[in-house]
Amino acid sequence: MLIGGSRVQSLIERFGSPVHIIDEDEFRSRARAFATSFAGWTVYYAGKAFVNRTIARWVDEEGLSLDVCSGNELAVALSTGFPPERIAMHGNNKSIAELSAAIEAGVGRIVVDCVEEIDRVDDLAGRYGREAAVLVRVTTGVEAHTHDYIATAHEDQKFGFSLQSGQALDALLACHAAPHIRLLGVHSHIGSQIFDTEGFAVAARRALGLIHEFRARTGTQLEEVNLGGGFGIAYTAQDAPLSPSDLHRGLSQIVEQVRTDLDLGPLRYAIEPGRAIVGPAGVALYTVGVVKPVIVDRGSVRTYVAVDGGMSDNVRTALYHADYTAILAGRPSHAEPKLARVVGKHCESGDILVRDVYLPADLRPGDILAVPGVGAYARALSSNYNHAARPAVIAVGSAGVRPILRRETLDDLLALDMGPTGPRTGQSDR
Amino acid sequence: MLIGGSRVQSLIERFGSPVHIIDEDEFRSRARAFATSFAGWTVYYAGKAFVNRTIARWVDEEGLSLDVCSGNELAVALSTGFPPERIAMHGNNKSIAELSAAIEAGVGRIVVDCVEEIDRVDDLAGRYGREAAVLVRVTTGVEAHTHDYIATAHEDQKFGFSLQSGQALDALLACHAAPHIRLLGVHSHIGSQIFDTEGFAVAARRALGLIHEFRARTGTQLEEVNLGGGFGIAYTAQDAPLSPSDLHRGLSQIVEQVRTDLDLGPLRYAIEPGRAIVGPAGVALYTVGVVKPVIVDRGSVRTYVAVDGGMSDNVRTALYHADYTAILAGRPSHAEPKLARVVGKHCESGDILVRDVYLPADLRPGDILAVPGVGAYARALSSNYNHAARPAVIAVGSAGVRPILRRETLDDLLALDMGPTGPRTGQSDR
Repeated sequence: MLIGGSRVQSLIERFGSPVHIIDEDEFRSRARAFATSFAGWTVYYAGKAFVNRTIARWVDEEGLSLDVCSGNELAVALSTGFPPERIAMHGNNKSIAELSAAIEAGVGRIVVDCVEEIDRVDDLAGRYGREAAVLVRVTTGVEAHTHDYIATAHEDQKFGFSLQSGQALDALLACHAAPHIRLLGVHSHIGSQIFDTEGFAVAARRALGLIHEFRARTGTQLEEVNLGGGFGIAYTAQDAPLSPSDLHRGLSQIVEQVRTDLDLGPLRYAIEPGRAIVGPAGVALYTVGVVKPVIVDRGSVRTYVAVDGGMSDNVRTALYHADYTAILAGRPSHAEPKLARVVGKHCESGDILVRDVYLPADLRPGDILAVPGVGAYARALSSNYNHAARPAVIAVGSAGVRPILRRETLDDLLALDMGPTGPRTGQSDR
Repeated sequence: MLIGGSRVQSLIERFGSPVHIIDEDEFRSRARAFATSFAGWTVYYAGKAFVNRTIARWVDEEGLSLDVCSGNELAVALSTGFPPERIAMHGNNKSIAELSAAIEAGVGRIVVDCVEEIDRVDDLAGRYGREAAVLVRVTTGVEAHTHDYIATAHEDQKFGFSLQSGQALDALLACHAAPHIRLLGVHSHIGSQIFDTEGFAVAARRALGLIHEFRARTGTQLEEVNLGGGFGIAYTAQDAPLSPSDLHRGLSQIVEQVRTDLDLGPLRYAIEPGRAIVGPAGVALYTVGVVKPVIVDRGSVRTYVAVDGGMSDNVRTALYHADYTAILAGRPSHAEPKLARVVGKHCESGDILVRDVYLPADLRPGDILAVPGVGAYARALSSNYNHAARPAVIAVGSAGVRPILRRETLDDLLALDMGPTGPRTGQSDR
């Protein structure tokens, strides 16, 4: 099996096992598909899905903007020379240091999330002699996930300003009145792994309704609406995501219809795909260590296949009950399929990577398994549980093979360890 | 508020916010209570809950043994001079490198988890000219959690050898026949956060039944039974854990009763508390950044309190729906209590630390919140999600205040980053 033109066997030989692979061509073509399909919109790559210095560079080269949600993500982007004016800064609790860094760098947008932040941004922008360009994060009461959405008046979560309660309008008015804030518009994010545009229709109607209300109160028409991200990808064959062009068609129709209905002037639109760009570009490769038939019920057998990674390098199955698939990648097999569960090597029964998958009955220790679709929220959420060193992340594709994050070592893990004080210093003491 | 004699305010001033505190005296007194109450048993501290070089040293000094579940955990312990003969090596998929390191170091026990491993251990021990001391991990069909347990014939999980299917007896026989393995006994682990001994009674009856069966087959009486860990701690006022002495009384009665019923000779017993020792010794301190009233239903208000950490330094609430509490720790308050939810600063609505807690109505940005009971499985499972740098871990107590893990920095995070290749190298390029 080849990934981005590289044999999985040689990737493991060169970079160790487990290893995460990012297909650069796939990443770039997905980024480009969003940029092209959404021409005239601003497309922010959502860095929280997975970002590092190389990926920030790819995002820049493909002409996308970048959404960061911490001071460190901002620093990573700036360190590659990413143009600050194409960066949006998110976060429900940005520190003063993070806001200062964003304002000092001159980021293109700060998405304001709470009352305290309006004062903080205004104050800091004043001190830096800047005007901070701001969107107000609005909760519309729409919560979308996969094939469903709910639309209520309120949202029981930490982000943004509630529309229904009047907090959102108050926030817009406060930003409008703040001397060092340039209020551009509103931001609405409705969920994750969304496969249709119905939830966006309700949310857009409410968000644009707020712009209409704000104009009625102030005479000022806001310029910009950011619809957030959450566009679904295929983790298994059951998922059927929308293409960027279908998504654009659907979202454009919605916002333009609502805009016309409300008799609003021209608006700039933005979206924030993260998973939809990097998710399908990532593949995790693992080596099988144990194949264990476990009798589970009335004599039926589930084959537990234990690999050399697990919840430390991909916690999504344990954390979100996410579904993945796995493929025997190191050799061909014509053996019958059998029902298997792919588990990791961590000391925890919930350490599952792929809950249910059919794998060849001749699967054996030493075989290589590929788990596709791990580009987003896997390495980004990785831990050192059980002192696991995190795998390397390797870029493959037409530009060549190279590590973008090197494999972690025991020395890296011990870099934070201040060591014991006191008498016993065995000869193995470092 | 004081933790181990230190003011929380000065801990945050010295070591930054957020910060995790380990009360050394509490850790040591809990370790000692287990050692004393379980005199005659072997008490292994379960390193997976939280271990580093300082904690390994404390475990050693308190005379406890140590259970590790990876080669890196083993290396951490050995680097402090921890006596290898007091180390047990766990893991459902130990690599050849990990088994080699364990055998070469001469660890006291290897807990064998699968058929493949019996051959691997025997082979490696032969090559090192050693005899590997082995326990066989048995799944008894008992699964215990909090106030309940279920007892079935099988367990649908990755660990060990099924007793009911005969796999466990086969594994004992294979180890017995292996020339370089010294088979000592069986290991059974039944769950986590367990508050009574009922589940252990069923598991012990089955595990000792296996020893009885093995004696009937081979004429050899095995010497050792390890009952695993899983002893509950109080995360909130609702939890009422057993004291080590009550636990010892309960477990002793059970195993000695079963041993007598089965007419077995003397047995050595072991347990593996981890959370029960380090959990209550840990407190996380956070600084409040945002206090946001959110209208959730029929006008009722939930106050979202956002702090400067979150699921990156404690994922248990998101991962296991764990319950914690939080306390205003930086100042006194006589304000009315109000229902709050403590959330982190990550770009994710599931980023919750404490789901429901009453906090003073005058809570405000800058206040310090303490979340107790985070010593186990919080820092151990921590991530760099959103490029969060992990907090320092500080030991406090009568031996003084000192960092045992220093705060992570952006430079630490970038240590693995190979950087982008290509033309754009802005002046901020590192």
